[in-house]
Amino acid sequence: MSKKLTKREVDYSKWYNELVVKADLAENSSVRGCMVIKPYGYAIWEKMQSQLDKMFKETGHQNAYFPLFVPKSLFEAEEKNAEGFAKECAVVTHYRLKNDESNPGKLIVDEYAKLEEELIVRPTSEAIIWNTYKSWIQSYRDLPILINQWANVVRWEMRTRLFLRTSEFLWQEGHTAHSTKDEALAEAELMNNIYADFAQDFMGMPVIKGLKSESERFAGAEETYCIEALMQDGKALQAGTSHFLGQNFAKAFDVKFANKEGKLDHVWATSWGVSTRLMGALIMTHSDDNGLILPPKLAPIQVVIIPIYKSQEQLEKISEKINPVVSELRNKNISVFYDKRDTHKPGFKFNEHEIKGVPIRIAIGPKDLENNTLEIFRRDRMLKENIPFEKIYEKIDFLISDIQEYIFNKAQKFTTENTSVANSYDEFKSLIKNKGGFVSAHWDGSSETEEKIKKETKATIRCIPIQSVGDKGFCIVTNKPSSQRVLFAKAY
Amino acid sequence: MSKKLTKREVDYSKWYNELVVKADLAENSSVRGCMVIKPYGYAIWEKMQSQLDKMFKETGHQNAYFPLFVPKSLFEAEEKNAEGFAKECAVVTHYRLKNDESNPGKLIVDEYAKLEEELIVRPTSEAIIWNTYKSWIQSYRDLPILINQWANVVRWEMRTRLFLRTSEFLWQEGHTAHSTKDEALAEAELMNNIYADFAQDFMGMPVIKGLKSESERFAGAEETYCIEALMQDGKALQAGTSHFLGQNFAKAFDVKFANKEGKLDHVWATSWGVSTRLMGALIMTHSDDNGLILPPKLAPIQVVIIPIYKSQEQLEKISEKINPVVSELRNKNISVFYDKRDTHKPGFKFNEHEIKGVPIRIAIGPKDLENNTLEIFRRDRMLKENIPFEKIYEKIDFLISDIQEYIFNKAQKFTTENTSVANSYDEFKSLIKNKGGFVSAHWDGSSETEEKIKKETKATIRCIPIQSVGDKGFCIVTNKPSSQRVLFAKAY
Repeated sequence: MSKKLTKREVDYSKWYNELVVKADLAENSSVRGCMVIKPYGYAIWEKMQSQLDKMFKETGHQNAYFPLFVPKSLFEAEEKNAEGFAKECAVVTHYRLKNDESNPGKLIVDEYAKLEEELIVRPTSEAIIWNTYKSWIQSYRDLPILINQWANVVRWEMRTRLFLRTSEFLWQEGHTAHSTKDEALAEAELMNNIYADFAQDFMGMPVIKGLKSESERFAGAEETYCIEALMQDGKALQAGTSHFLGQNFAKAFDVKFANKEGKLDHVWATSWGVSTRLMGALIMTHSDDNGLILPPKLAPIQVVIIPIYKSQEQLEKISEKINPVVSELRNKNISVFYDKRDTHKPGFKFNEHEIKGVPIRIAIGPKDLENNTLEIFRRDRMLKENIPFEKIYEKIDFLISDIQEYIFNKAQKFTTENTSVANSYDEFKSLIKNKGGFVSAHWDGSSETEEKIKKETKATIRCIPIQSVGDKGFCIVTNKPSSQRVLFAKAY
Repeated sequence: MSKKLTKREVDYSKWYNELVVKADLAENSSVRGCMVIKPYGYAIWEKMQSQLDKMFKETGHQNAYFPLFVPKSLFEAEEKNAEGFAKECAVVTHYRLKNDESNPGKLIVDEYAKLEEELIVRPTSEAIIWNTYKSWIQSYRDLPILINQWANVVRWEMRTRLFLRTSEFLWQEGHTAHSTKDEALAEAELMNNIYADFAQDFMGMPVIKGLKSESERFAGAEETYCIEALMQDGKALQAGTSHFLGQNFAKAFDVKFANKEGKLDHVWATSWGVSTRLMGALIMTHSDDNGLILPPKLAPIQVVIIPIYKSQEQLEKISEKINPVVSELRNKNISVFYDKRDTHKPGFKFNEHEIKGVPIRIAIGPKDLENNTLEIFRRDRMLKENIPFEKIYEKIDFLISDIQEYIFNKAQKFTTENTSVANSYDEFKSLIKNKGGFVSAHWDGSSETEEKIKKETKATIRCIPIQSVGDKGFCIVTNKPSSQRVLFAKAY
């Protein structure tokens, strides 16, 4: 805890890795690419889950649970989806171990316990779910199906980073079934909007809503809506996606419904998900060289109170004054930690709560008791203030909303300042290379041009913004006509 | 929905299987032994989770998340534990699929993507967690660690039944680390008490708290606390277990701490868990030949209101009267469903909500509007009553607590009536064969005797009750001295 973090401008990537560990959020495990989410990190994820879950339920979705394993024959049914995930699948081939007779105390795979059909550990659940929906759907009366699942998934990534890209991660995946194309499209857009609202209102993270280009779409989707956010190092991060799947999965799994006239048609589908990757986005949007900065709405501890004392008697007097405050704050649904641990000095505690991003810190010592004051510190701006004791509730209420607002505005300003417009390919290349951030440019809509740009600049199309400025123009590379600007960036 | 359930006395097992499906709780999936938990079943599980999670947090536990996979070398480190689970492990051996060149559109395992070390899909997480704790624990200051995890686990069961025994199931697993044996023992007992309180106060399910005999202990535990409940068919069900693990895992993973005097010692451990098996216990404790009976505290819908109408105008008048009731009940945190679906007739709805165990059903038609009355039905006792409209809140409040109490008392009475005392082995055999239920008998404490009884009667020791009547005696089989009676039963 004592060692300082690497500074962001020295090595952003190193700063991130150190921060995740020092703020006690997560660590690498002994399983390649899989992380351990530590209690403090998990508490933030729980707050995210709880809010998202509420938003899903308020829009009519229900939770359910489908198997972890997908039999290979189901996995390969929707070809594009299978192709997209085949190269990163963990495969279960056996169901038993036995003693290694040549090596006492050790176990080996029992070759007699080979599965007839291999099982894929789900990288995503469209296949297993649509195979299930088949028996749930006969008529339009059975539609829509609006289901979400909170689950773990596995994608065997070669280069992993805590939260941002791990072989196992936690997520939610919504899978809905509809009787019309329009309804499915509306659902996909609705869920992308919910992700955007969550990102902005709770994470304090500004996002751009848009559509993916064909080459960046989810494998098996006809359209992918997404939210994209800009990190402090000028790289973009895809924070959530919502897919209109057309009738692809219904066709692959033969899921038909009878409409009101009794005619059979394939069902329309969406799927949508956000994952523990949001933790990485949260960290990189707000934090500074002193550690984590958390939005009050997602902070496991919103207020920490640290007593400054030398004698037990002093501590008792402070506690007498602070205990009712703790109760009152809890009544107001503010999460508070009265940190009177006697195993650590105040300096250690200050540092610990700073690096862990507790939004508000209150310190109170014998002099404060005399003067009826306390010291209050806001983590986002690193500002300290002495206030009269009786102002405590008013000040905390103010700070909780002000910090939430301040960090959003700061990130918003950063995103705006780091979104540039390029009108030629030279300008584009220079912006991507020297400034980073989002670059808005005209593109001819072809995968070839997209590929050329990616190869030459490492920038990809992050999204085709929904709220386009609407100006037509000509592709910066081919000079062919373009109906709107798209957003490019280097990305996580 | 229309077909009647098999009656319990005709075929209890068939009744259970049908009920799980007809009440829309769960179904078998296309993956051997793995279930799909449907939205209604999952909603009950969520209520269980939420209450248990609250109880864990109130006793100082925090949630975290550890990897799904356990490398084989870690899995085998604690030998008894490994031996206990080796025969039912799903094993990941490869991390990639490739196109099957002889079979276009199909995928096969890529033999070049074989893992150097096989990964076991966790059947339980002691190994991966204690390997992690190793780096978290240096001194007594780092203790206790009180962590819980909500997760899926896989045990390759040969004979599976929805909720009761499935290859994949959902559960929580607590894993705690302590500096003294006494503290760890107290923790194990505390968590067993929490399970008992949850079972009785929320599930309305009476349980016996006890210790497992050596042969029934968790693999790797020194002592296993458990709660055992009696199902309607006279078979016992182990509903939760809490293990004192001694220093076994600390020794296997070399986890030591320095005490206040600076001396190194191995850390003491507990683990404890309940799973979606509780859903099976809940179903079998209360339900009847008409379907599910749910305790109001865990019912996703506590009150359903069904309008009886012929014309749209009638429906509107009913809705005018009912809409404020719906709002008021929601304000009182009572979950209510105003079932005005026009796709189904009242008879269908009555039947559906009956089989799904909605505790309270209200029906209201044009005559009720005239007379300012309504019909209220309690599912547990299948009792209908007409009441003045203005009594609605009072009546619902009463029924919510009365149903909770009534079904617990009924189950309690059943358990008492089906707990017998045997003073000879002949009496024991007759009771197990003809009456079923718990049989309390003296036992000499040896695994041999236990094994003989199991072989001859299929009854096992469910637990050595904590609250023993304290009478000493002589083993019913060997006549050797016995310090207390233990509870036998055939079990799920």
